[in-house]
Amino acid sequence: MIKVGIIGASGYTGAELARILCNHPEVEITVATSRQYADRPLSDIFQNLRGKVDILCENLPVEELCRKADLFFTAVPHKTAMDLVPVLLAAGKKVVDLSADFRLRDVAVYEQWYQPHSSSRLVKEAVYGLPELYRKDIAGCRLVANPGCYPTSIILGLAPLLKAGAIQPQSIIADSKSGTSGAGRTAQTGNLFCEVHDGFRPYKVGRTHRHTPEIEQEVSALAGQAVNITFTPHLLPIARGILSTVYATLTPGFNRQTISELYREEYGAEPFIRLLGEDIFPATQFVRGSNFCDISFKIDPATERIIIMSAIDNIVKGASGQAVQNMNIMCGFAETAGLGIVPLFP
Amino acid sequence: MIKVGIIGASGYTGAELARILCNHPEVEITVATSRQYADRPLSDIFQNLRGKVDILCENLPVEELCRKADLFFTAVPHKTAMDLVPVLLAAGKKVVDLSADFRLRDVAVYEQWYQPHSSSRLVKEAVYGLPELYRKDIAGCRLVANPGCYPTSIILGLAPLLKAGAIQPQSIIADSKSGTSGAGRTAQTGNLFCEVHDGFRPYKVGRTHRHTPEIEQEVSALAGQAVNITFTPHLLPIARGILSTVYATLTPGFNRQTISELYREEYGAEPFIRLLGEDIFPATQFVRGSNFCDISFKIDPATERIIIMSAIDNIVKGASGQAVQNMNIMCGFAETAGLGIVPLFP
Amino acid sequence: MIKVGIIGASGYTGAELARILCNHPEVEITVATSRQYADRPLSDIFQNLRGKVDILCENLPVEELCRKADLFFTAVPHKTAMDLVPVLLAAGKKVVDLSADFRLRDVAVYEQWYQPHSSSRLVKEAVYGLPELYRKDIAGCRLVANPGCYPTSIILGLAPLLKAGAIQPQSIIADSKSGTSGAGRTAQTGNLFCEVHDGFRPYKVGRTHRHTPEIEQEVSALAGQAVNITFTPHLLPIARGILSTVYATLTPGFNRQTISELYREEYGAEPFIRLLGEDIFPATQFVRGSNFCDISFKIDPATERIIIMSAIDNIVKGASGQAVQNMNIMCGFAETAGLGIVPLFP
Amino acid sequence: MIKVGIIGASGYTGAELARILCNHPEVEITVATSRQYADRPLSDIFQNLRGKVDILCENLPVEELCRKADLFFTAVPHKTAMDLVPVLLAAGKKVVDLSADFRLRDVAVYEQWYQPHSSSRLVKEAVYGLPELYRKDIAGCRLVANPGCYPTSIILGLAPLLKAGAIQPQSIIADSKSGTSGAGRTAQTGNLFCEVHDGFRPYKVGRTHRHTPEIEQEVSALAGQAVNITFTPHLLPIARGILSTVYATLTPGFNRQTISELYREEYGAEPFIRLLGEDIFPATQFVRGSNFCDISFKIDPATERIIIMSAIDNIVKGASGQAVQNMNIMCGFAETAGLGIVPLFP
Repeated sequence: MIKVGIIGASGYTGAELARILCNHPEVEITVATSRQYADRPLSDIFQNLRGKVDILCENLPVEELCRKADLFFTAVPHKTAMDLVPVLLAAGKKVVDLSADFRLRDVAVYEQWYQPHSSSRLVKEAVYGLPELYRKDIAGCRLVANPGCYPTSIILGLAPLLKAGAIQPQSIIADSKSGTSGAGRTAQTGNLFCEVHDGFRPYKVGRTHRHTPEIEQEVSALAGQAVNITFTPHLLPIARGILSTVYATLTPGFNRQTISELYREEYGAEPFIRLLGEDIFPATQFVRGSNFCDISFKIDPATERIIIMSAIDNIVKGASGQAVQNMNIMCGFAETAGLGIVPLFP
Repeated sequence: MIKVGIIGASGYTGAELARILCNHPEVEITVATSRQYADRPLSDIFQNLRGKVDILCENLPVEELCRKADLFFTAVPHKTAMDLVPVLLAAGKKVVDLSADFRLRDVAVYEQWYQPHSSSRLVKEAVYGLPELYRKDIAGCRLVANPGCYPTSIILGLAPLLKAGAIQPQSIIADSKSGTSGAGRTAQTGNLFCEVHDGFRPYKVGRTHRHTPEIEQEVSALAGQAVNITFTPHLLPIARGILSTVYATLTPGFNRQTISELYREEYGAEPFIRLLGEDIFPATQFVRGSNFCDISFKIDPATERIIIMSAIDNIVKGASGQAVQNMNIMCGFAETAGLGIVPLFP
Repeated sequence: MIKVGIIGASGYTGAELARILCNHPEVEITVATSRQYADRPLSDIFQNLRGKVDILCENLPVEELCRKADLFFTAVPHKTAMDLVPVLLAAGKKVVDLSADFRLRDVAVYEQWYQPHSSSRLVKEAVYGLPELYRKDIAGCRLVANPGCYPTSIILGLAPLLKAGAIQPQSIIADSKSGTSGAGRTAQTGNLFCEVHDGFRPYKVGRTHRHTPEIEQEVSALAGQAVNITFTPHLLPIARGILSTVYATLTPGFNRQTISELYREEYGAEPFIRLLGEDIFPATQFVRGSNFCDISFKIDPATERIIIMSAIDNIVKGASGQAVQNMNIMCGFAETAGLGIVPLFP
Repeated sequence: MIKVGIIGASGYTGAELARILCNHPEVEITVATSRQYADRPLSDIFQNLRGKVDILCENLPVEELCRKADLFFTAVPHKTAMDLVPVLLAAGKKVVDLSADFRLRDVAVYEQWYQPHSSSRLVKEAVYGLPELYRKDIAGCRLVANPGCYPTSIILGLAPLLKAGAIQPQSIIADSKSGTSGAGRTAQTGNLFCEVHDGFRPYKVGRTHRHTPEIEQEVSALAGQAVNITFTPHLLPIARGILSTVYATLTPGFNRQTISELYREEYGAEPFIRLLGEDIFPATQFVRGSNFCDISFKIDPATERIIIMSAIDNIVKGASGQAVQNMNIMCGFAETAGLGIVPLFP
């Protein structure tokens, strides 16, 4: 039984960590922080947690936090994470950081897309927390950079193909659609019910979304060459879920059968990846609330393109669930501990 | 570890039983039936279950079913249940029946609202499966009539008040709103996405919904007199959830404090009832996917009325979750076994 | 062709006035104000209006506004309206005020529910703008207090019955459900998509919602006695629409047929009231975007109660459409001018 | 004033024709057919039409239909249209056919994707009813093949670029997302509220959707060469709306400015196309209920791709609105007659 702390408990990913961790057999939530809701039970803010996680939110200096837990989830905005994490690590704590601050291995790229980085030394140490790619590195590390939601869905769909050279890296186009929880819980006109409901729209089109360099970093590493991709995010009128439809030109010689084998070899033993059969396509509603990533693909022979589809719950496999998976690996727990939640449908 | 069977696995309540039972520590699902989807994995029909409940649906005569499990959930339409249940009981099985066939203790009333009853002897034996009211009877029985979704939400809200004489029984008006999963999975124009989405409407107004006699049976028993209530169901553009707003005239002498005490005495130790504080009202989104019933109330002094509000997930506490709770009691398991699911929000 | 101004154009009711007025044969929108979006086209804020209402939003002192139009719609918060309206009237303008500031005829009641009133003299002059009840008074006035959305739906349902003494006034319970546009366009956590979507909840229960005294004022006037009602608002996960389910005890001697006649006599010639047939109930999706109020009722003989159901679009008949209807009457236009919009379904 | 008939009035496109035509200044709906709802008012099936279009549905042989109107909209499934249209034309009627039967100019292609064609002679005569491309041909014809919804959104986005050679035709990928009304009003499990709500999924991936050859026909004609495209449809949990995100490789020499000019030249005078400014992207909620097609684009210099986005209401510009626009052109009415409906937001 280890003690874990949630820093930034009043956002959707913080609350989701609480939802998952409260049924986890190996951990106890010993501290949850919120500036805005200090001294109020977390279950007052998220009434779903009532009777399950009634811990009081606290607003404590990081030094005091360190005394309260062994491992921390930092579910705070980028920049804030950068300032907290070094202190936590210095106190001998393990950290799973859900912000973007330690995801980009090239500090120059980080600074181009975000702002100056104050902990560039830790950037080198941090492990990109996609267990399906970096499980071994995660096992031994003390700082995991938990991947972004869009990158998780896109990279998991592409990895086996890129490793095998089955697609042409420069041809990749990722058309992604996300539920509104991805925008967070801050009150903004654009996220009001009336603005989002019964509608659909793209946003940050054409190399402007900050997940672009993160996706390109991993795609480039898998392809063994610098790759630019086209990535278009869209806003869905649903609470949870990302579906990415990814297009690429197939390398001659690959076909339905060989591609299927690539996926099976890579993911056959993965506990959270479900490979769907032929002509069964993923849907966000079938992964809702769970840590699953559902993947399938289709080849269009006339254009020699492959269409890869993947679905995740953006705040589970795309954030808090994956963070718990990373914690499990870091701490030597069963990787699936606490993550046996069945998707909720309908 | 007991063997359980789901008869009628291809409806929403059948699939929900599978979702809950697959993480239950004391049971194994050994048979699931579906006429329409025989020989197909249940997870083909409900893709959320993939990797969790991949059992093949079967279409077997009831005699063969009896060989496959110790306890059965009959998640079939009324009339069908009436024919199945006697055979299952005769074979020594325990049964939790999710249909309406054994809920009404007065066969004449049943026949007035449904059709002729072929097992009236069993009606007497069946226990109405609302654990908060009938826990002891459930413990010893072999046939539980699992309550309807609307009745569950309304009766749980009213019971402590009726027992204490705190409200005038003849003044009860229940204005209930249900998510669309309550209408089942049969393809009907009225339940199409485009007909329900972004809309709201009442239906079966004025003593025409079949849950009326069920509610009146329990309200009358609690009040110790024959009671007619007004009950209006409405269709919400949500998948899961019932919220009932119930109005009644307060008996002189009762006030906020004494009413609060009544609820605390009655429900303080109940694992699945959450009493909300003053001016915190229930919401369907905070019980989604869980077996909780959230209750609060407000008194309007100017009209001497009390407004009682309760929220449940109609296919969990209103159907499959309550069925599992009943099974737990019948079998001597921990009453909360398998039911620790935290509500999914957002 | 008269010149009209929209004061407060950047809220949902302001935008809705623009949507309706731009196709109105007798008016031209000559000014639209917004503090926040000054100097930006209204169609930048509401992209639906692009090519239809591209007028620039202005932030002008009220004295300058007076030079720009003949009639004004004040779609601003209460208190703000109170300060603007006297100036507009003093300049000889006509005003339809969509705020609550002139709806309550008793200033003491207003001050109990809102704040001190600075124009109590005008309160006496203002006409409550429910055309079905006050058409003649509206025709001759210069200041209309446009009714609240909930009151419109409830009063229209009750008026014929109260006038005829067909129900017992003290027995009235109004259970109302509103779409989220009723909460306005101000960014607040409680109105975020993720908080409202796929959920349902009551709010301001038990004589706490400010529409209570407005409803009671009109119900009392119709009943000829002081009446307290019970009113419970709920929040629906839809953008537009209010459905009110109203309960009352029937006066002996009235039945389905006589009640039907009361409605027909009262509303048979009304252009915006649609009386539905027996067992056809109103639904918000069938009035969406239109100025219609759909009404039907059902009698429950066992409890001697009548259940009255009414549906409106809260920002049309419940706000901007009714405001245009009032303008039409004030200006001698055809009452239906600009309001021929067919409800949008699905 | 001409007489028009709606054949197939009980589907969503039939009802939408009624919604639009009832406010059209030049036409009268004299007949509406439905097999299933014969002898019932259309407004019984679509309660939104009550008081607006109360015409009785009829089930008449086509010969009798011919006596009742001058122009017909055939809103029936493919194959059925093929049998009706020749009879209507032989009787001297004009026809706007909303089915797929006359859209594909190559009968062999039609027969490959649908079934044998019984009126191949008429295929040659029919004009593809996309007014922005074929206005002159539509003006003189008696049979218009009204385009499919997906093709309308995609072709309008691409046409100016293809005509100018600004993109490489073989690089086109169209990722389209449609509201559920596109699936029609037939009761099917897959279109139930609970299956679609709060979810998102692709379907008919990889050259299997029947709109593929229709899109390729028009793209090829515009490109002056045979083109294969990749087209992926997805199902949105909204009632109305299509948003297509189309990717193509830019021809060297074209940039933001020259592309903007191409669009302005082509569409600057079009009444139903709205070109959005830089970094303003289309959204389905801003065209809801209207005949507008909103278009914008973005260039990604790193990949030399252009991303074109277009939004329509699938049952207005994607079906019934475009059909009325075609009728207006065929009959010499103002092209915008009856189509001045402002998009409904929120």
